[in-house]
Amino acid sequence: MKIKGYRFGSIKAGIKKDRLDLGIIYCENPSLCVASFTKNLLKSNSIIVSQKHLLNTDYIKCIIVNSGCANTACGKNGVKDTEYICNTLAKKLAIKPYEILIASTGVIGEPLPTNKIISNLDKLVTSLSFNKTSILNFAKSIMTTDTKPKIVYKTVNIKKKNFNILCFAKGSGMIAPDLALSKNHATMLVFILTDINFAKSLMLRLMKKIILPHFNSFSIDGDTSPNDTIFFVSSNSEENSEIDKKDIKKIEDIFIEISKEIIKKLLFDGEGVTKVVELEVCNCNDIDAKSIFKTISTSLLVKTAIYGADPNWGRILSACGRSGVNFDINKIDIWIGNYLVVKNGTSNFVKDEYVRKTMSENFYRIKIDLKMKSSKSHLFFITDLSKKYVEINSMYKT
Amino acid sequence: MKIKGYRFGSIKAGIKKDRLDLGIIYCENPSLCVASFTKNLLKSNSIIVSQKHLLNTDYIKCIIVNSGCANTACGKNGVKDTEYICNTLAKKLAIKPYEILIASTGVIGEPLPTNKIISNLDKLVTSLSFNKTSILNFAKSIMTTDTKPKIVYKTVNIKKKNFNILCFAKGSGMIAPDLALSKNHATMLVFILTDINFAKSLMLRLMKKIILPHFNSFSIDGDTSPNDTIFFVSSNSEENSEIDKKDIKKIEDIFIEISKEIIKKLLFDGEGVTKVVELEVCNCNDIDAKSIFKTISTSLLVKTAIYGADPNWGRILSACGRSGVNFDINKIDIWIGNYLVVKNGTSNFVKDEYVRKTMSENFYRIKIDLKMKSSKSHLFFITDLSKKYVEINSMYKT
Repeated sequence: MKIKGYRFGSIKAGIKKDRLDLGIIYCENPSLCVASFTKNLLKSNSIIVSQKHLLNTDYIKCIIVNSGCANTACGKNGVKDTEYICNTLAKKLAIKPYEILIASTGVIGEPLPTNKIISNLDKLVTSLSFNKTSILNFAKSIMTTDTKPKIVYKTVNIKKKNFNILCFAKGSGMIAPDLALSKNHATMLVFILTDINFAKSLMLRLMKKIILPHFNSFSIDGDTSPNDTIFFVSSNSEENSEIDKKDIKKIEDIFIEISKEIIKKLLFDGEGVTKVVELEVCNCNDIDAKSIFKTISTSLLVKTAIYGADPNWGRILSACGRSGVNFDINKIDIWIGNYLVVKNGTSNFVKDEYVRKTMSENFYRIKIDLKMKSSKSHLFFITDLSKKYVEINSMYKT
Repeated sequence: MKIKGYRFGSIKAGIKKDRLDLGIIYCENPSLCVASFTKNLLKSNSIIVSQKHLLNTDYIKCIIVNSGCANTACGKNGVKDTEYICNTLAKKLAIKPYEILIASTGVIGEPLPTNKIISNLDKLVTSLSFNKTSILNFAKSIMTTDTKPKIVYKTVNIKKKNFNILCFAKGSGMIAPDLALSKNHATMLVFILTDINFAKSLMLRLMKKIILPHFNSFSIDGDTSPNDTIFFVSSNSEENSEIDKKDIKKIEDIFIEISKEIIKKLLFDGEGVTKVVELEVCNCNDIDAKSIFKTISTSLLVKTAIYGADPNWGRILSACGRSGVNFDINKIDIWIGNYLVVKNGTSNFVKDEYVRKTMSENFYRIKIDLKMKSSKSHLFFITDLSKKYVEINSMYKT
């Protein structure tokens, strides 16, 4: 794994019990950053402070991340404490506080263990290095209920030279990202690092056109977190000649691949997830497709049927009917895998056993054709709802 | 239990395995009926046919109800089969087909066992009688995953004379009623019968002002069914002098009581329900309160925390933040029972153990104060999400 301009560190700061819980990414040069945050009105103090810093500069030097505490709604001093951490770290690194971004994940409302973090900053800085272990351990340090660290690494060849893209993500529950570009505000954390020499305009375009649409199109439990954050950073450490149209197509394709791969990792490691379903909603506009996705992905009846491989497609049809989308119920078609189970709004009398077989796979497609005016097709990803999910989340704080 | 003008019947028609599954209410005289149906675009054939009949008359003679099949999305002949049942029953009762209303509950998409129903109509009519057993058995015949029959009976004294109100309900899953007055269209089934001599205008007013707001303000799983139906019927069998303002107040109060009592029965018998929470949303308008209710009542994280009595109030705060309501997050207060856990958008540092104690009760209140311009207070009821719910619904059709 190669990527120029970054070092990684992580330690056990005692925020969680004997696990890596504090991570750092250090940029050797001022690195161009484009960020997206959750649209939840409730915002982590880490997001409030990062947004403030991004008003000062587009070039950052450091990202610090803690797991085990959301740094959200944890009292009046939340922002001040967060700034104090950044200020102290800035001094140790001899950089400006606003060159630091911060992200947090964990329980909402619990006080941030500021002193534990402060007293461990020296150890954190000392842990910085660039090797396989430091990369893997950073990915571990940002985990909460995740069972696996999530890393995707790709190279892209531009004008006969290889560039690198390294993507970290965490997130297992409270996952239904709804992010907006910067200035706004997400507990999915995603860090996409590259050494391609990018102009800000191209980074913004990749964020808007590729990254955000992908990350806003999947759901584990429908609960959009106040901490969701994507930091997209370019160290500009590799020299490259001007990027032309052909290169842009190549770069876009690689970012589509990265988004898809990391999202699949998030989905399959979702809390209690046993099945992932690709949901295609077609022949309708974006807003209607999103409404169908939102209704299906939060329907307890659809999610439990997916869990049990129960061919109860009536629940999908009924969810479409209550979605608020004004389509003709007598025209809708629904496929489960290769089976057209609903034809023109009513049963196509496919044998339950066939459908059950498809639904027993751990990954399959459900397609909903609304036959409205727009001929667009929209892809989303949803998960099942298992007993394990209930178990994990009924005792989260206990 | 007394009520004039009605007889009740029920039989095992073989729709379900060896359980009462076909019920009938017979009105001795043409009886004034006001109806409400689900707003789901998907409609049971039973609703389509009942709506057609109600276009012909306000006065009905019979309600027939089957459990075990939703009579929804079950093929092209659904409406024709449903009409055939009504026509055949009408002949046997020597009434007009449009004097019959029909309701169904069960799995969506399964063919209606028309022949089983037709061949059992004689037995059904023969079962008609008025006594404690026939009333109880009717309540049983409309059950699906319900574990208990649900009946509320009240009397109201108007001008020194006693009148009777008898209410039946079924519904345990797919419960998030969203009903509109007639002409529109709901698997909660509710039958409210009375012998008060009502004018249609007063019945409509009671439906609009009391019954609908109550039934549209609770949720078990957030999935609004294509079969939800309320039939409110008056046999006009008791003579009464004109109803004055004081009487109306009394009648309204009794209907509030009935709505609350039957809804509590539905809530506590909800699929896998172990806890019921009264949700008060205050200092905001109706639409905003409804959005908060909808978001909280479908949040897996809030519902699992309620199940586990886990004092994770951050999930409630976060759900408010993503509800789409545009309030000031720095002003919101949240109470769990008597504890103010969130004060002005952040932790009030109440000890977890106190909150856990409240949340261990099987019925308590959560209050959310948005401190917006409107000073109105809104009451809703929500339930927890247990492993049992997942168990029931992952194998419903299997």
